Amino acid sequence: MPGIGVDVVDVERMKFALERTPRIRQRLFTEDEIAYCERFRFAERHYAGRWAAKEAVTKALGCGLIQWNGVEVIRRRRRAPSVRIFGKIKSFADMVGVGEEDLYISITHSELSAVAVCVVRREQISG
Amino acid sequence: MPGIGVDVVDVERMKFALERTPRIRQRLFTEDEIAYCERFRFAERHYAGRWAAKEAVTKALGCGLIQWNGVEVIRRRRRAPSVRIFGKIKSFADMVGVGEEDLYISITHSELSAVAVCVVRREQISG
Amino acid sequence: MPGIGVDVVDVERMKFALERTPRIRQRLFTEDEIAYCERFRFAERHYAGRWAAKEAVTKALGCGLIQWNGVEVIRRRRRAPSVRIFGKIKSFADMVGVGEEDLYISITHSELSAVAVCVVRREQISG
Repeated sequence: MPGIGVDVVDVERMKFALERTPRIRQRLFTEDEIAYCERFRFAERHYAGRWAAKEAVTKALGCGLIQWNGVEVIRRRRRAPSVRIFGKIKSFADMVGVGEEDLYISITHSELSAVAVCVVRREQISG
Repeated sequence: MPGIGVDVVDVERMKFALERTPRIRQRLFTEDEIAYCERFRFAERHYAGRWAAKEAVTKALGCGLIQWNGVEVIRRRRRAPSVRIFGKIKSFADMVGVGEEDLYISITHSELSAVAVCVVRREQISG
Repeated sequence: MPGIGVDVVDVERMKFALERTPRIRQRLFTEDEIAYCERFRFAERHYAGRWAAKEAVTKALGCGLIQWNGVEVIRRRRRAPSVRIFGKIKSFADMVGVGEEDLYISITHSELSAVAVCVVRREQISG
């Protein structure tokens, strides 16, 4: 397992995709993620950040993006973002002995780019 | 504690901010940081990198940017950059049991973007 | 040892360098890396990603880029990328007690930028 994943997404490219194919929102993001992103004026930046996070998580696990919508980014007020995993990605993580609580992510975006990093840390290690 | 933080800053945006409001230097950076950045022709790239590092550190700690100028990036010739923390950010780090020596950062910039990553590693772990 | 390294490379800048000085391929990349990158229509994005990875590895080790071509990125189908190190960089890694198997990398590129992150994890830790 690589244990580290990074992903960069061009904000303009996400904007273009969202405009051309509005329903990719539902294909790529969960209902809560859509609700979160649509609150912002430059929603594309937030979508780009979330998409980067999903990719970063699957790279850190070493499975790649075997399922759209198998990773959800959770935001709580004044808390760092956390991650939920589902379906095939959850199964893969189980197989390699990684739980949701071992996945640490950070997300950032500028006007141009969104970048996310994920590291896997097991409790016995990071404790 | 997230333990990982990433931040990206557009170089052009930093340049614009520095030109429009020259005194943000003193507001956002320490004296030594200003001296370091001003040595370079494209000082905005170095300011952008440092700003990204400050954000990355506060994200990794999980406190967010609760104080401007609570993180200083230290450069020594031929050494990786290191970090000093102050004030509210130092207090937060104390509370969660993290010392300056547990904060590892890396900074990079291109013409477009500066990116910084911070990981928290406690000695007993990374030993 | 910093233990974390990040690097960003502008894709346009790499494209320009490859066009102006075609033989930088041989100077900066191994034969296998060149073969890999040239398979892609936008080869410059892949060269940029690899270059970012080399820089990220030397930053994580704390030696800096003391040798061109001292780091090779290995890709195997459906596997996360891994790293080989040579020459001076290998010697430096030996000195600080880090083996190739302790170097974890992740690489990403968009149309604009390539970003790579490297973390050092020793087996006894990440076990």
